[in-house]
Parts: sequence; structure tokens; C-alpha cells
Amino acid sequence: MRAVDILMKKRAGETLTEAEIRFIIDGYVKGEIPDYQISALLMAIFFRGMTAKETAILTETMLDSGDRMDLSGIPGPFVDKHSTGGVGDKISLPLAPMVAACGVKVPMMSGRALGHTGGTLDKLESIPGYRTGLELSEFRKGLIEDGFAMTGQTARVVPADKKLYALRDVTATVESIPLITASILSKKVAEGADGIVFDVKCGSGAFMKTYNDAKALASSLVATGTAMGKRVVAVLTDMSQPLGYKVGNFLEIEETLDCLEGKGPQDVMELTFRLGAWMLVLGGAAETIEEGRARCEEAISSGAALERFYRNVVRQGGNVGQMLKRRGSWRSDFARELKAENDGYIESIDALDIGLAGVYLGVGRNRTEDNVSPTAGFIFEKKRGDLVKKGDRIAIAYGKDEASLDPAMALARKAVSISKEAPQPLSLVIEEITAP
Amino acid sequence: MRAVDILMKKRAGETLTEAEIRFIIDGYVKGEIPDYQISALLMAIFFRGMTAKETAILTETMLDSGDRMDLSGIPGPFVDKHSTGGVGDKISLPLAPMVAACGVKVPMMSGRALGHTGGTLDKLESIPGYRTGLELSEFRKGLIEDGFAMTGQTARVVPADKKLYALRDVTATVESIPLITASILSKKVAEGADGIVFDVKCGSGAFMKTYNDAKALASSLVATGTAMGKRVVAVLTDMSQPLGYKVGNFLEIEETLDCLEGKGPQDVMELTFRLGAWMLVLGGAAETIEEGRARCEEAISSGAALERFYRNVVRQGGNVGQMLKRRGSWRSDFARELKAENDGYIESIDALDIGLAGVYLGVGRNRTEDNVSPTAGFIFEKKRGDLVKKGDRIAIAYGKDEASLDPAMALARKAVSISKEAPQPLSLVIEEITAP
Repeated sequence: MRAVDILMKKRAGETLTEAEIRFIIDGYVKGEIPDYQISALLMAIFFRGMTAKETAILTETMLDSGDRMDLSGIPGPFVDKHSTGGVGDKISLPLAPMVAACGVKVPMMSGRALGHTGGTLDKLESIPGYRTGLELSEFRKGLIEDGFAMTGQTARVVPADKKLYALRDVTATVESIPLITASILSKKVAEGADGIVFDVKCGSGAFMKTYNDAKALASSLVATGTAMGKRVVAVLTDMSQPLGYKVGNFLEIEETLDCLEGKGPQDVMELTFRLGAWMLVLGGAAETIEEGRARCEEAISSGAALERFYRNVVRQGGNVGQMLKRRGSWRSDFARELKAENDGYIESIDALDIGLAGVYLGVGRNRTEDNVSPTAGFIFEKKRGDLVKKGDRIAIAYGKDEASLDPAMALARKAVSISKEAPQPLSLVIEEITAP
Repeated sequence: MRAVDILMKKRAGETLTEAEIRFIIDGYVKGEIPDYQISALLMAIFFRGMTAKETAILTETMLDSGDRMDLSGIPGPFVDKHSTGGVGDKISLPLAPMVAACGVKVPMMSGRALGHTGGTLDKLESIPGYRTGLELSEFRKGLIEDGFAMTGQTARVVPADKKLYALRDVTATVESIPLITASILSKKVAEGADGIVFDVKCGSGAFMKTYNDAKALASSLVATGTAMGKRVVAVLTDMSQPLGYKVGNFLEIEETLDCLEGKGPQDVMELTFRLGAWMLVLGGAAETIEEGRARCEEAISSGAALERFYRNVVRQGGNVGQMLKRRGSWRSDFARELKAENDGYIESIDALDIGLAGVYLGVGRNRTEDNVSPTAGFIFEKKRGDLVKKGDRIAIAYGKDEASLDPAMALARKAVSISKEAPQPLSLVIEEITAP
């Protein structure tokens, strides 16, 4: 078998066999096939695509390049949620304990903030003492005793993805649906999840800006996950404005506590319930989405979800007392108000601009080696559709330092548009894609 | 400027600027841009193409990576012919002295046999003593005194093409019209030609097997050459059967002498006159193609072309006496007859099969480091359209050794098909493409 023949075949739009995909990807990971052949293949895949079966084989091959989380001996079901990333998207934080409280285990491996999107690990680490780099034994214990655990990826999880992603990043081959699918799925399957709910964001603050692109990715995730024998659902959700009223690290922990106490922002509650309901259905803990939702609501109103969250914080080294003490008062000294420049209805608060402003403030980072600030971020007081008068406060921005505020505020002002007309209501859940 | 942004732009089907093309190609040649970005770009070009202007800029950039032949002080015009390669294609050998005899200078840089296609340098080197690796001073002297000279490329001619071609070869990006165009044109323009006639072969023995592919390449060569300010014509010619009756190295020198004496095979004479006529038109030595042809015929019938050929052989170290003594008798001891297996008309003698058989015999080579045999090859006695009886001799094959004959004969037998019906006559010149 020769790599060049495999390239030729994909270039012609033909379907690669399992042996061909394994030959070229294994060869690449082992350093036997050079990166210049792989980058040409990736570009051919960009143009020609891959079938769900090819993508499933690619995903399995990538998975086999590293370790899978060993969940043996722990009774399932294991269901996880993956979001393609957004601004103010703290859904994982109330979702995991809520679903765990309903009897479905959530083995959650999360990422860090990069570019305009936030990161679950960074948010958790804003809790004093909280550790996200768990040993396997700790992760297993969390799953057994709390029903969920929160960790980062180790270097041994899907090394093929790290190598391929680094190459895609410099060869203009990131934006390929099958390659994105294999990258996402390989990491989720490596966690040991049997069922996965994908929250595919759509809009300015999302990786997929348009409905068509988001739909294509969602469909590919469902088709490929199904071809791999997993139970999967994809929910297309709006990311044209930030989720909730708080964007930041500790600020989003605060909003998480609100949600777990049943008083979170309407959009965050809604999405947490919807995704949670699907997770219960995929995990077999509910027959219908309605039943799943009712169980999730019960887990919140009974306090069971909140109690799971506290247990997790304690287990992972966090100081619950400190967290609660800082709640509502731990703020950066460098603050600035964002005010309405006209009278009217808020027509939009652009998620991408707010996310980019957040990078300046210290919520996120442009380079993986940069640090983030726990207290940086935005607290919004108005959202899309609210009526404002000129000079009304829309948000307060908190920066890591004084210098961060000017560029962040310029972006934040650009993010807001005010109209004389009330905007049409927006659907948070745009569409749901289930396996055939 | 970043390479990845240029890749992204080409991937999206946009037109690259001169600055972008120069940045990425110069960077590659200097080793500043890695091959994995170039191979992804080449694949994007395969799918998205390039405009004639982009291809012209690419060609100029490649040219600038090396030396151009210094023809300063030599009065022109300089016109060359380039063939995309075929079987039995010795046209360059009678063509260059014929055109030179008509007052148009031919600065010819040729290649070697590779795969099923023959090489002008290998044919010339079958003349005892003939040297094809000329110093610039020798090349210039040949042009001044004989009106033409025959040499190989040095390493300093278009090094960008050598580097790019090696990468294309292993990344399934050879078959891209703009990349083929830039590769061909850069080498011809480096020779110093003002006018170029392209013989774009079409059929089983050609690089471009189909009319559509050959037409696309011919059109691209003309459009790009014109955009570079050159006078160019492309002639699409048939390569479904070998040209002439002899396929080999010294065997083709013999047929060259026949042509220069005015008694060559009809197809070889026809194509030599046609391409020569165009060269005279491009060089301004004839007003019309008819006038050009008449001048070419005169150069043959007067013996002027033959005399130029002898002068060149002597200048380049060849022994004319030895050449003429060996003519018609220098044959390998390892010979085998190819006989008709049925009564009927020869419907076809497949050029690719004969070319591949020639590689076994020793006419050509599979790897650039292999040697070729001067006496190996085929002498055909019958061609397409001839009526044969079972057992009639169609050809004699000469091999470099006994072992070469069996596999070569198997291919040669496969090449021949005989039919009860006389085949339709075939047009040697299929189409001519001139600049608008």
C-alpha cells in the first residue's frame, strides 16, 4: 500500500477502505508517513468529504492511537454532553451534577478557553483549590460516588487528534465536517461515553456561523456516532448572543449556583433542562424527552443537583465555603460600565464581539500558554429584546487590569445594537437531530 | 503575510495576487515555508485551478528561482518546440536542424526517457561520441554557427520546478493543468525562447489520454504563454499509436536521417513539417503556415537540414562516419518477431503498450538512474490500417538481453488488434490552438 495511491483515490472522490485509513493514519502517528502527504490528504478530504462510515473508521483509528478511559467495573450508563463552544456557555456545570442526580453517569473531559470561546476547566479552576487534572483513580471514584467527575484531557488521550489538529491549523484544513467530526467524537468516545448529546452552536459566537454549516456538522456527528454504535443526539442552539447574564470564569460559577438553586437565567435553565432531558433518554433513565425534563426539574428543585455539585467541588479539592463567601462579591477592581447609546430595544448583543472583548479582559486567551483571570468578565443587566433609555447600564465589564478595559469596551460597544422596533423572538433550540 | 491565509484563499477558489504567489513559492524554495503547507496548497490548486494570470505569475516566480539561458548578443528569433511526450516521437531531431536551416534559431533543452515515453537526449547519445551536457559557451556557439543546439537541463534551471515536482509526485498533485503548465513553460522560457510550439499529445501513449484533458492543457499553455508575452501555439496530435516505424534510440536516429533525406515515414514527415511551419510563423520567418511549410520542405529537399544535423553531430562530439556506418545494421543480437495472429486489418497498435514494452527492451527506463540500450527497440513493418495475413511479420523487437524479450513481447502482442473491417482513417493533427 502506498500513501500516494490513497491520496489519489480520495482526490478522485472515492471511498477509502478501513485498511487504507488505518495505514495512512497509523503511519502518520508513528512518523512513517510524512506530514506533506497527510496535509495533501486533508485538503483532498476538505474538497471530497468522507462518508459516515469512513469518518467512523477515521475516528476509531484516531482513538486507537491513545488510551481510552478505563471505566470497567463501574455500572453505567455513561452519557456526556459536548458543546462546540460559545460565549457564556456554562451549561456543563449545572448539567453534569443534575444528570448525575438522575442516575446517569457523566464522565466529563473538558477543555480550556481559546480565542473567543470560554473553557469549562478555566471556570472550575476559579473555585479556590479546585483541581481539574485528575488521576484515573480519582476520576473513577468521582463517577462511582458522585455520578460525575470533571477532568482535562491527558496527553495520552487521542494523540492522533493533537498531531492532526496541529497540522490542520497551519494547512487551512480545519473547516472540514468529517475531520471536525472525527476530532470531536474521538475525544468523547475515549472518555467511555455510551451516549453523547451534542450541543452544536450556530451564530456569530459559534465555530459554525451559519445554520447550514451547523446542521451539516450536527448531522455528521449523529451519523458517525451512530455508525460507531453510540447513542447520539445533536441539538442546534443559538449562539448569536452570550448565554445567561454572566460571562467570565468565577462569574459563571456564580450563575451555575443560581441554576442549581433553580433561579438561573431563563435561557441557561432552558438549555440545561433540554440537554439533560436528552441525556436521560440516551442513558435509558427516561422514556421520553418530557419525562427526562420532569426528572431534571425535580433534581434541581429537590436540591439533589446542587448537593452533587458541592460533593464534586469538595472531591476535586475546591473550597465550598470560600466559593460561597466570594459569591456575588469577588470582583476585579478594574471595572467599566457599558451604557446604552440610544433609546430603544436591544436588537442584539453580538456573541463574537463579547467573546473577543472577554479575551482582552482576561476571561479567555489567544495562546494556550496564557493565563486567565478568575474575576474578569461581563455582568449583563439587559439582554436582547429589553427596552432601554440612553445612558441605561447594559453591563459592567471587569478586566484583569486597567489596560484591558479600553479595547474590551470598544468591542463591547460594537457588540450592542439598539433598534426602535422590538426584535423578533429568537429560538434558543433551533433544531434537534436524532439517529434514524 | 501568512502561508495559511494564502491556502485559505485558494481553498475558497479566490485568485491569488502576485505578492502572495511570490511569498509562498520563494519561501518554499528558500526552505522558509514547509512542504506540508505547499502540498496542501497544491491540492487546493488541483481542485480550484488558477487563472492564466496566476499561472503566468507562478511560472515567472519559478523561473526566477534559477538561471535563464544567457542568449544575449545572439541575434534571434529563438523558437522552440515542446512535446508532452510520446512513443516513437523523434520529431525534435529532424525538426531543429530543419527550422535552423530556415533562419529561426532553436535553443533546445530536452529530457530523458522516463516510463513509457522516449527521451531526445537518450536518442542523441546513441550516436557514438555525442555529448548532451553542453557548457553555456558551447550551446551559444552551436546556436550562432548551426542555428540550433541540443542540451539537457542543468540543476540551476528552474530548481523550484524540481522541488515542486518531487513534492507533487508523492502527494497526488501531478495532474493539475495550471501546475503542469507552469512546469513546462518555466523550463521553455528559461531556455530563452521567444516563441514556443507545443505538441500536446493525446491518446493512450500520451500524458493526457483524453481529448478534453489534452485540450485543457493546450489551452492553458497558450493562455499562460501569451500572458507572459510569448508567441505560442499548441497543436493537439494523436498518440494512440507510435509515430513512425521505429521506436528506440539509435533506431530513431536512423529514422531521423530518413526524414532529413526526405524519405521518412509519412506521419513523421507530416508532423515535422506542420510543427516546423508554425515555428517559422512564430519566429517571423514566414507569413503563413503554408509559406512556412514550403520553406521547411525546401530545407529538406535541398539537403540544408541534413547538413545542419551533421554539423551539430560533429560539434557535439558525435562521429558522423560511425553513425552512417552503423545505420541499418546496428542491431541487438536479442531479437524476436511479432506476427499477426489473424487475417485482417490492423485496427490499432497501442502506443502505451509499445512504450511499456520498450522499457523492458531497454529503450526507456522506470527509474532515472537506469541505463538505456542504444540498439533496443521495435522496427514496425505494418501500421494501423494495413492488411495482414495470419503469420505476417508486424514488427521485430530488439532487446537489451534475452530476458527482456518475453515480457516485452507479451505487451507487444497485447498492443496489436486486428479487425475484419478497415479502421477509419485517423487524424494525426487533431486541433490547433492559437493565441486570441
